[in-house]
Amino acid sequence: MNEKGLSEKEIFSYLENVKSEDTDYYKVLSSMCTRPHKIAVEAHRLFIEANLGDLGLFAGAHRLEREVIMMLGELLHAQSVDAQSAKIPSGKSGKGSIYGYLTTGGTESNIQAVRGMKNLVTAGEKKIVGTPNIVIPESAHFSFDKVANMMGIEVKRALLDSEFKVDISSVESLIDANTIGLVGIAGTTEFGQIDPIEKLAKLALDNELFLHIDAAFGGFVIPFLENPQPFDFKVSGVTSIAIDPHKMGLSTIPSGALLFRSPSFLDSLRVNTPYLTTKAQFTLTGTRSGASTAATYAVMKHLGREGYRKNVQYCMQLTEKLVKEARKLGFEPLIEPIMNVVALRVPNPDLVREQLLKRFGWNVSITRTPRSLRLVLMPHNTAWDIEEFLQDLKKITTEI
Amino acid sequence: MNEKGLSEKEIFSYLENVKSEDTDYYKVLSSMCTRPHKIAVEAHRLFIEANLGDLGLFAGAHRLEREVIMMLGELLHAQSVDAQSAKIPSGKSGKGSIYGYLTTGGTESNIQAVRGMKNLVTAGEKKIVGTPNIVIPESAHFSFDKVANMMGIEVKRALLDSEFKVDISSVESLIDANTIGLVGIAGTTEFGQIDPIEKLAKLALDNELFLHIDAAFGGFVIPFLENPQPFDFKVSGVTSIAIDPHKMGLSTIPSGALLFRSPSFLDSLRVNTPYLTTKAQFTLTGTRSGASTAATYAVMKHLGREGYRKNVQYCMQLTEKLVKEARKLGFEPLIEPIMNVVALRVPNPDLVREQLLKRFGWNVSITRTPRSLRLVLMPHNTAWDIEEFLQDLKKITTEI
Repeated sequence: MNEKGLSEKEIFSYLENVKSEDTDYYKVLSSMCTRPHKIAVEAHRLFIEANLGDLGLFAGAHRLEREVIMMLGELLHAQSVDAQSAKIPSGKSGKGSIYGYLTTGGTESNIQAVRGMKNLVTAGEKKIVGTPNIVIPESAHFSFDKVANMMGIEVKRALLDSEFKVDISSVESLIDANTIGLVGIAGTTEFGQIDPIEKLAKLALDNELFLHIDAAFGGFVIPFLENPQPFDFKVSGVTSIAIDPHKMGLSTIPSGALLFRSPSFLDSLRVNTPYLTTKAQFTLTGTRSGASTAATYAVMKHLGREGYRKNVQYCMQLTEKLVKEARKLGFEPLIEPIMNVVALRVPNPDLVREQLLKRFGWNVSITRTPRSLRLVLMPHNTAWDIEEFLQDLKKITTEI
Repeated sequence: MNEKGLSEKEIFSYLENVKSEDTDYYKVLSSMCTRPHKIAVEAHRLFIEANLGDLGLFAGAHRLEREVIMMLGELLHAQSVDAQSAKIPSGKSGKGSIYGYLTTGGTESNIQAVRGMKNLVTAGEKKIVGTPNIVIPESAHFSFDKVANMMGIEVKRALLDSEFKVDISSVESLIDANTIGLVGIAGTTEFGQIDPIEKLAKLALDNELFLHIDAAFGGFVIPFLENPQPFDFKVSGVTSIAIDPHKMGLSTIPSGALLFRSPSFLDSLRVNTPYLTTKAQFTLTGTRSGASTAATYAVMKHLGREGYRKNVQYCMQLTEKLVKEARKLGFEPLIEPIMNVVALRVPNPDLVREQLLKRFGWNVSITRTPRSLRLVLMPHNTAWDIEEFLQDLKKITTEI
């Protein structure tokens, strides 16, 4: 750090320059994030100082957090939950209770869901001899590698079926006396696939296990599809859900959410906070952005279900267009897309990926098993982009 | 969520109203956060879309992260580190190497520092039979309760001496064959005290232990005091440091940083990231705000050491004024303040705290052992506030 400070003008001239190295999301087909909605950006700015790590000082931002959790609870069918006395009261809607808080994103939500399982089991009657374990699909996001590394529990990976859903018999075979919970994915990162949540829930109920659903991406997609598959609290047996407003929710970063069916989960994450305006904290981070909370509130209120439905319809139209046109060129998707993620079978996908970036500036990614081109069709993409992309893909695959 | 969206006007009329329930930091003497600097807010806005979870797409924001880590490394005397090949090159400064990344704040930094210790020990030659443990001061922040709860390691708490520094003989007595690391605090949350870092470092070196310094608050204070105590990488034996730009660094939330002396620490936190533009990630969260990174860059460049020195001088003047005037009223501080935190001995502190809020709107907090009024003098406070506060304190203590 320099002794003397630079002027605002010098700094912003540099920052504008640096910003030109960042993507503006044009030609990005690899990201589950997108440009935040304008109203989210404005609300973020208005609440830029707000710290949800100190709720007593930021009662307004905390009110917005509760309202967002309620909206998300409704979206994920928490109204079918039995109405107990609520940590976060359901207010006028009278639609039952929901428990949760706004996280920094899917990784924190997944970590905290597993931490909650571990704490509840430790405090409960179930006897675990040896290391507790959870069973997750092979397709689970790499955040579960962090869970495995830090949490002192074993993470077992169940095989996928031919459609890249978790294989229920594989899950069943991995459950043992030390298993404390299962994880299902509603919108896998690689294939956009939805695991058979109802079957996982039956396994969970039969074996008295927790069931966490990672809907970080799918949570703002599946409810707005034409015939949504059951994946949320409507399914009895689902105990927690991760959903990310900063992905298809069009909010600002960091905006994740973790929702629980029961208040005992939140309680199990509690630590005492002696020097704050509140006495306890159940979040992973301490100081927390109230700005992105306001952003999520604003964009959810502004779009409503109708707005999100349009957003999903738009992305699904791009997805269908991409698959249809790709087929004409001889490229088949690995599965019929369930949501706005396509895994395209092309020859030599790693080389194709490299060439797409190097020659034409397209950002795409690769699925692991089997290796294929992975494309996420987001609100920042256009029909014109799809056509240009396919022309470029054709050129490359013809020449290599 | 409603079917139809609300207009921007309706939403902002509500948000403005809700915001009035949040503090504007007037009469807040309990927080280690403050209003972010204007230039931080502007830079945050400029980079609102940036996601440091996907470095390939956000090369500009990533450049800013590296520059911030370098500036923080310089601030914390990483120039004395031997110049190995650097993950984050030291560039033109030629001042050696530093390794680290920008976190969501002190809690994440502390969690990741301990996770790194655990992973390095697991991968190394030291044999741990049973549960690994770390030794922390009784005064450590409650984020270490989260570490204890999630990490599958034992957290031992060493006693404090009469000045609320960690007692070195207590630390020494707690070290056993399973101890993997020590923690020292540079700016304790309750007393603003600095542990005897050089003595801790000697213990760490003698016993081949890691030593993490939690300077979340003190990191932007101590270097700007007149006779700073040694607490950072200048002290051989310190292996990692947490420092929070969103506290006395005057940046936006979320802005923390975790710095390591050696690249092996970062490597130990690595997980593979198959579907991103980069192949590995060593952060705790996935998607990460590039906006607060830009904010930290901007405010550090704008203030320079001179600006931060003025900021600390201002807060220390308020602190000295408070202590001097409080003494006139008969209230002694528990220790002579080291930085801008005062623990004031008053009769019946819990009742006084309650009355200060209820009758006069002052937010203060309470130290645990012994119970006293805890006051943090931040840039948002003024000399006038201090006088008003002491008058109100006098009224209350006279009447109860």
